[in-house]
Amino acid sequence: MGIRQVNEPEEDTAQTVHAAAERYRNWGRWGPDDQRGTLNFITPDKVLEAASLVRRGDVVSLALPFDATGPQTGELGRVNPLHTMTFTGTDAAAGVQDFLPHGFGAADDTITMPLQCGTQWDGLSHIFDRGRMWNGYPATDVTGLDGARRNGIEQVADGFVSRGVLLDLARHCGLSSLDPGFAITERLLLECIDAQGESARIGRGDIVLVRTGFLGARRRDGWGDYAGGDAPGLSFDTADWLYRTEIAAIATDTWGVEVRPNELADSFQPLHQVMVPNMGLFVGEIFALDDLAARCAGDGVYDFLFVAPPLPVTGAVGSPANPQAIR
Amino acid sequence: MGIRQVNEPEEDTAQTVHAAAERYRNWGRWGPDDQRGTLNFITPDKVLEAASLVRRGDVVSLALPFDATGPQTGELGRVNPLHTMTFTGTDAAAGVQDFLPHGFGAADDTITMPLQCGTQWDGLSHIFDRGRMWNGYPATDVTGLDGARRNGIEQVADGFVSRGVLLDLARHCGLSSLDPGFAITERLLLECIDAQGESARIGRGDIVLVRTGFLGARRRDGWGDYAGGDAPGLSFDTADWLYRTEIAAIATDTWGVEVRPNELADSFQPLHQVMVPNMGLFVGEIFALDDLAARCAGDGVYDFLFVAPPLPVTGAVGSPANPQAIR
Amino acid sequence: MGIRQVNEPEEDTAQTVHAAAERYRNWGRWGPDDQRGTLNFITPDKVLEAASLVRRGDVVSLALPFDATGPQTGELGRVNPLHTMTFTGTDAAAGVQDFLPHGFGAADDTITMPLQCGTQWDGLSHIFDRGRMWNGYPATDVTGLDGARRNGIEQVADGFVSRGVLLDLARHCGLSSLDPGFAITERLLLECIDAQGESARIGRGDIVLVRTGFLGARRRDGWGDYAGGDAPGLSFDTADWLYRTEIAAIATDTWGVEVRPNELADSFQPLHQVMVPNMGLFVGEIFALDDLAARCAGDGVYDFLFVAPPLPVTGAVGSPANPQAIR
Amino acid sequence: MGIRQVNEPEEDTAQTVHAAAERYRNWGRWGPDDQRGTLNFITPDKVLEAASLVRRGDVVSLALPFDATGPQTGELGRVNPLHTMTFTGTDAAAGVQDFLPHGFGAADDTITMPLQCGTQWDGLSHIFDRGRMWNGYPATDVTGLDGARRNGIEQVADGFVSRGVLLDLARHCGLSSLDPGFAITERLLLECIDAQGESARIGRGDIVLVRTGFLGARRRDGWGDYAGGDAPGLSFDTADWLYRTEIAAIATDTWGVEVRPNELADSFQPLHQVMVPNMGLFVGEIFALDDLAARCAGDGVYDFLFVAPPLPVTGAVGSPANPQAIR
Repeated sequence: MGIRQVNEPEEDTAQTVHAAAERYRNWGRWGPDDQRGTLNFITPDKVLEAASLVRRGDVVSLALPFDATGPQTGELGRVNPLHTMTFTGTDAAAGVQDFLPHGFGAADDTITMPLQCGTQWDGLSHIFDRGRMWNGYPATDVTGLDGARRNGIEQVADGFVSRGVLLDLARHCGLSSLDPGFAITERLLLECIDAQGESARIGRGDIVLVRTGFLGARRRDGWGDYAGGDAPGLSFDTADWLYRTEIAAIATDTWGVEVRPNELADSFQPLHQVMVPNMGLFVGEIFALDDLAARCAGDGVYDFLFVAPPLPVTGAVGSPANPQAIR
Repeated sequence: MGIRQVNEPEEDTAQTVHAAAERYRNWGRWGPDDQRGTLNFITPDKVLEAASLVRRGDVVSLALPFDATGPQTGELGRVNPLHTMTFTGTDAAAGVQDFLPHGFGAADDTITMPLQCGTQWDGLSHIFDRGRMWNGYPATDVTGLDGARRNGIEQVADGFVSRGVLLDLARHCGLSSLDPGFAITERLLLECIDAQGESARIGRGDIVLVRTGFLGARRRDGWGDYAGGDAPGLSFDTADWLYRTEIAAIATDTWGVEVRPNELADSFQPLHQVMVPNMGLFVGEIFALDDLAARCAGDGVYDFLFVAPPLPVTGAVGSPANPQAIR
Repeated sequence: MGIRQVNEPEEDTAQTVHAAAERYRNWGRWGPDDQRGTLNFITPDKVLEAASLVRRGDVVSLALPFDATGPQTGELGRVNPLHTMTFTGTDAAAGVQDFLPHGFGAADDTITMPLQCGTQWDGLSHIFDRGRMWNGYPATDVTGLDGARRNGIEQVADGFVSRGVLLDLARHCGLSSLDPGFAITERLLLECIDAQGESARIGRGDIVLVRTGFLGARRRDGWGDYAGGDAPGLSFDTADWLYRTEIAAIATDTWGVEVRPNELADSFQPLHQVMVPNMGLFVGEIFALDDLAARCAGDGVYDFLFVAPPLPVTGAVGSPANPQAIR
Repeated sequence: MGIRQVNEPEEDTAQTVHAAAERYRNWGRWGPDDQRGTLNFITPDKVLEAASLVRRGDVVSLALPFDATGPQTGELGRVNPLHTMTFTGTDAAAGVQDFLPHGFGAADDTITMPLQCGTQWDGLSHIFDRGRMWNGYPATDVTGLDGARRNGIEQVADGFVSRGVLLDLARHCGLSSLDPGFAITERLLLECIDAQGESARIGRGDIVLVRTGFLGARRRDGWGDYAGGDAPGLSFDTADWLYRTEIAAIATDTWGVEVRPNELADSFQPLHQVMVPNMGLFVGEIFALDDLAARCAGDGVYDFLFVAPPLPVTGAVGSPANPQAIR
């Protein structure tokens, strides 16, 4: 790879990140108007292949519950969901809905939430590299007034149906959770794939779920700085693998996919800067993978039909999701 | 059926609704602690059957975009989604994110929305019948403080994967849209199923999508009173069919599934009162079915793998969804 | 004045607006770090004078109720307030608060609202002129991430206490409401002041409330396009008067203070562009003035102690208010 | 008083609270339809007296800034304000507002906040005593659907103008802050009034501000459990004084006015249960009193004109406020 991994002077970091950005850039690959990025790798044949992976009829939800017990701390405006009732069953019981006839009662509710506060997809308008986002569109296409005029999450409302593959790095390493700062390198990914066997081979259009165990550990022990703090995650050196495998998306059970602290000196989420605006790769975060992992370990089958539709909020730069692994 | 359909005096309406409520009540059918209702009809075998229906690898999203152009008017607290940016690409371009290194920029966003303002599932805690909800739990289990302590939508985070069947009533009737007040009776449903053929037969655990054409018509011509007003929809007389077919869920492209004005004198959504709290049947509303309908009409195949996960908002009485029909 | 009032070609409009902007610009007048603008005209002596105007002990609220019946239509993200309960009296009555001892019960609530959806103050960060806001700060100081880093409404948390003067233009013209498109010129303001007498003379530091009657008319007859549509209001030719009188703030009972359609060809709120970023003048909108007007007409006294604190939301570009006229 | 202060068995606590509730109940005092409670003590003469207290022309804001740095932790749905921009100065600078002519630009914003998350008034619909609120209205008049149908904060939009008196208990005790658990008894209040002199005498219709120093201390040192935790505050034994002085409102610089832990065994905010639903007394919380206290100590004058209008949110059970002390 030639990418030096640690403690480079800042100037070299910029050079390293920008070099990788150019090397792995897919702009124009699907035409000048494309807003779907690597989801283009998912073909009808891929969907057919994915559907064929349903062997047991098991469905597993990979979403953390959306509620006040979530990991957010308010940092950068990311709070946990605020769910309030518009009317309630207690209203009905109190007789204040008596304008409704013959014993009919109803409850209704409302939510306020950052779109990326829980289990979620980054949209291709979420990250910029030197003023540009996916396919070369200017960052100024993401405005307060309209949100994302390009690369909004609504562009991929039907995009997240494919073969899913779980890479259970925590189990592969014999740990309940990898530690903060643990960098998952390409070499380790390949070893894990080998160890998991045929059902874990990775191909074009796949959606890869990387389990570090970190979400489960922090959910049990207290979130602390789970959202935004140090975490295990992908090494910057996986950029080449992410690119050449032509996967459609990658997701982890951490807040930010990448190892934190980041490996390059004076850097912030450098792999994001390569993946999202340049590669056009969709990134999923805060996926709850423990239940799925237990089932995969149980029968040794690591691939499945994966369906994880975003909410098509027009102009949104990301979306909550309730991903379904169907085995 | 024995259910009289129109213009009964109010007392008879109550009697009619309550009689149907008792006749079609499934309380206790899946144990005293059940919170999944008719989704229990979806077995692993049903999921396997559903997966086998993917023949082309086509994916169709059935969600209306979630944005300010939606159908809500503010009535009963139901407004359209309010999407605001927490930080923007214009921020990045203006240099106000320069604390981020080497050209990294980011955008983030937040939403406030009634959970049932767009394409959505009613939860089993959304409707009460004389102070009770699904499985006999008291309405007072749905509180301002906690939302739904029972029958919250998070209970069915993995529940909406099954065989889907589109019943295209508008096309069957040779209309672009059925008119407000048009009641879809059991007889008409059966005729439509017959006309659509083998792929439209309905069985246990299926999720049935009924297209009236009304969403498409109003989306083109102006929403008007689409949300909450008169609409085509299911006749109260379909309760028996909904019950005996043992379907898992029913959804339409209208705001409230039932024909409006309701057929029974002095009634309000009487079929809901039977379906949701008594039958435990999941109800979907504001589904965008026109694209799917065109494809089904194109190849004459009306069933498909259907995956429509709710957002598991803890204690929520409903949820937005982006349902996926995978053909 | 030399300001031509109507139907100029676009180029001349820009020239006219920019000339007025420069002529009436107060940048630097209170030092390079000032963020209070014309509120600096309110001195302790002015506050003493204002307090001396309380003659009857009458208090009049000038706020429209904040609720779903307000004038907003959703245009540009401006919706009416969405008020939801977090817990309710019906909860208490239903016994779901029984963890609280000896009959204690409580209700709590939450609001989502655009800060300028009802009775409100524009902050000095609300309007920009060619990339600059009040005192020359760049528009880029108002970001998605932080809101207004300069000129936020929290800078003037103690600024809105002064002598208030009602100019009842509707009554002066013998109308219940001025019509949309009616331009209130400097000449008409001066005539109204003369007619109202000594208590209506305007001096440095005063806060001037201009009543058109339009809010009351639309509140009675249906809001229609009250928020954002055509309206009576100040002529662009009042800029000189607003400047040379050295008033601290101006407010009206319309959504945008200025006459709409604007008088200058191809213009949008040109007086705002002069008043807010250049003059540093605070502007109040959607003030409910009818009750106050009736009292002033009753005793012929048009000045009073005026106290209208904003909510000091850090970084906000405006704020709702409940202004108090104390007579 | 005869009220035993500590460690009573639970049964006696109920008896004690209920006895005080009955002794200090003002229901019906201002007619069966009253919704203003003790604000009725503020007469026009009182307002005139209050206005006469402006001696220097100083204005002091008593509001904590409303932002993410506030004291809330999310407990019981109380989060800090979430302020987001609808459009920004960076939008204007990026040219995305170029549909606006001649260099006009604008920013706009939105807030989501619990109405009692910061400096605030409890409404008379906020607290219930055995199913009743102020003036005997049933708790069931506070619903999810409508909020407070009675005793909503909008009923007192013009109610908070009176003589204010600061009682600086912290300074009186020679401390920067009283400690959590410190009970301010009637005796201590009277001593403090005596020590502060003539300007601190308390009379009918006054609004009393009690400074413990606790807000300032926690703001400096970290909020910790400021919101909802242990705190200095009024002893339950002050109920008689609060009643017989006929004050219009009482406010403190703590989250809950009362000493915490509460003095009575197994009790929760027993003084609230007496003050709000029974006495009809308005209670203010999280007032920032340090700046005012320094000024009062500076000139030895503890009374002032006090104007603290709530936002008249229809049906709200409380309201944020930016109280103004005008000296």
